[in-house]
Amino acid sequence: MAVYTTVDTSELIDLLARYDVGELRGCKGIAEGVENSNFMLETTKGRYFLTLYEKRTDAGDLPFFIQLLDHVAAAGCRVPRMIADRGGTVVQQVAGRPACLIEFLTGVSVSEPSPAQCHAVGAALGRLHRAVTGFSMVRANSMGQTTWRPLAESCGDLNRIFDGQGDEIAAELDYLEAHWPLDLPAHVIHADLFPDNVLMVDNDVTGLIDFYFSCHDLRAFDVAVTHSAWCFSVDGATFYPERADALLAGYERENPLTEAERAALPTLMRGAAMRFILSRSYDWLNTPAGALVTRKDPLPYLRRLHHYQTKGAL
Amino acid sequence: MAVYTTVDTSELIDLLARYDVGELRGCKGIAEGVENSNFMLETTKGRYFLTLYEKRTDAGDLPFFIQLLDHVAAAGCRVPRMIADRGGTVVQQVAGRPACLIEFLTGVSVSEPSPAQCHAVGAALGRLHRAVTGFSMVRANSMGQTTWRPLAESCGDLNRIFDGQGDEIAAELDYLEAHWPLDLPAHVIHADLFPDNVLMVDNDVTGLIDFYFSCHDLRAFDVAVTHSAWCFSVDGATFYPERADALLAGYERENPLTEAERAALPTLMRGAAMRFILSRSYDWLNTPAGALVTRKDPLPYLRRLHHYQTKGAL
Repeated sequence: MAVYTTVDTSELIDLLARYDVGELRGCKGIAEGVENSNFMLETTKGRYFLTLYEKRTDAGDLPFFIQLLDHVAAAGCRVPRMIADRGGTVVQQVAGRPACLIEFLTGVSVSEPSPAQCHAVGAALGRLHRAVTGFSMVRANSMGQTTWRPLAESCGDLNRIFDGQGDEIAAELDYLEAHWPLDLPAHVIHADLFPDNVLMVDNDVTGLIDFYFSCHDLRAFDVAVTHSAWCFSVDGATFYPERADALLAGYERENPLTEAERAALPTLMRGAAMRFILSRSYDWLNTPAGALVTRKDPLPYLRRLHHYQTKGAL
Repeated sequence: MAVYTTVDTSELIDLLARYDVGELRGCKGIAEGVENSNFMLETTKGRYFLTLYEKRTDAGDLPFFIQLLDHVAAAGCRVPRMIADRGGTVVQQVAGRPACLIEFLTGVSVSEPSPAQCHAVGAALGRLHRAVTGFSMVRANSMGQTTWRPLAESCGDLNRIFDGQGDEIAAELDYLEAHWPLDLPAHVIHADLFPDNVLMVDNDVTGLIDFYFSCHDLRAFDVAVTHSAWCFSVDGATFYPERADALLAGYERENPLTEAERAALPTLMRGAAMRFILSRSYDWLNTPAGALVTRKDPLPYLRRLHHYQTKGAL
């Protein structure tokens, strides 16, 4: 949850006057998103989001996100585009922060997805991967495989979190460095397609949102991240094979994987689990007691890692 | 800001199925309100609020609020009524908490009100006070004048907050006990009509909200609380006489005060300042470091007290 910065109504009215989006009729701060302050605006013409970028988002990355969302929206993906004012400016200054007015999309996030919903999400991811064709801007993956060992080292002794399993994580980092595939298809990926970041109405995907981790990396790693996020119970203790089958079938209907990608999936899924073990461990150790952010427990991702180590992609 | 409890989408869908409000199409947790968890729901028929009552709201008080809002809405006031399901039930259980589905009202809260907006708010308060005629349920003021001394004592040494002015507050409590008026008109009042709790479009009041402090007390005390909330800069350092004149003129246009009430206003305004000095001091001293609530500084209300002590109601 978040809203780190409050915005005066008078500043909002002045902001909207620069756009063709109608006059302000309502504003609510939204208790979601970890990185930024988010507001839902109602105007005489409709609804919009306003995001104020706090320090964890690099304002220099905003042109990448703006162009990427325009590119994939033009290719037919349902994503929330950032809106330009009458002068063509997208990135504004609001309450001293970089800020963007963003399209509002209908839909809710599911908490316990059905196989049909997993199929729809897999297909939406496959369409997204087709849609990035021709998008030429580049953003490195700040959470990619080569970052994991330094991130683990910055956490210090992981036994503090994992009750004696810190050594196991060190061994897994060795495994991933030795086996990480390097020659698979790569392009811009979402890299964080959790249920929170997918809006649905019944079994239809109405929006993919929160592209702030999107970056250049292996497309099959995006499949692996999505698999880890959708195919287990939240606590990671139960794997649902029918969700996994549906997710992969939905993806491959839109965008078939190569044989090499399919063979690499178990390793990529172990990597996906590692990525979230480490980022959550880091946040767990570094979230101040008074923070407005809810810390996410890393343990559910250690359970996913154990599944992938023993069962592979199944 | 708040959202203490998260709600699964499947539970929301089940909840809405008991109402004639359409099907769920969106849900956002709202980062406002100190006491409860609030969600904005979008359905195929419109927008609604869902409030989950956390421990600071006594569920036994909910029938009072429900009936009060129905009563004043029927008399023409724009307030958010709580909505009954098809079986007539208003108070539901959601995520283990008492919860109510509530009407959505358009409008935004102003941060720096103009005199015209203060006039409109005064008039809306006057209409509210006429509208409670005939409402017979009773709720004591848990923050009324007789509670202030025990509340101050529970804070311990107020010099810890006010840098040597704790003795001054003790003396003011003596003054208020000696001079508090007892024989003025009394009925149900809002008791917390801050700008945050008034929705406006331009100079029109489109909603009075957040009745969770409403109670039986002197109606002129409600005027005094509203005066203290609307007629100063947020930091309490600047008094705006043109806002105050407009607020009182707006109120009296709808609901004239008696001579005795007008004479008592300076004392009631000192009491209003004391009420918020003490509640904010208590919260300041008792808010845990990890709380999701932003503590409000009591000092701006000490400045208001000084204004009322030296200038009276002017």
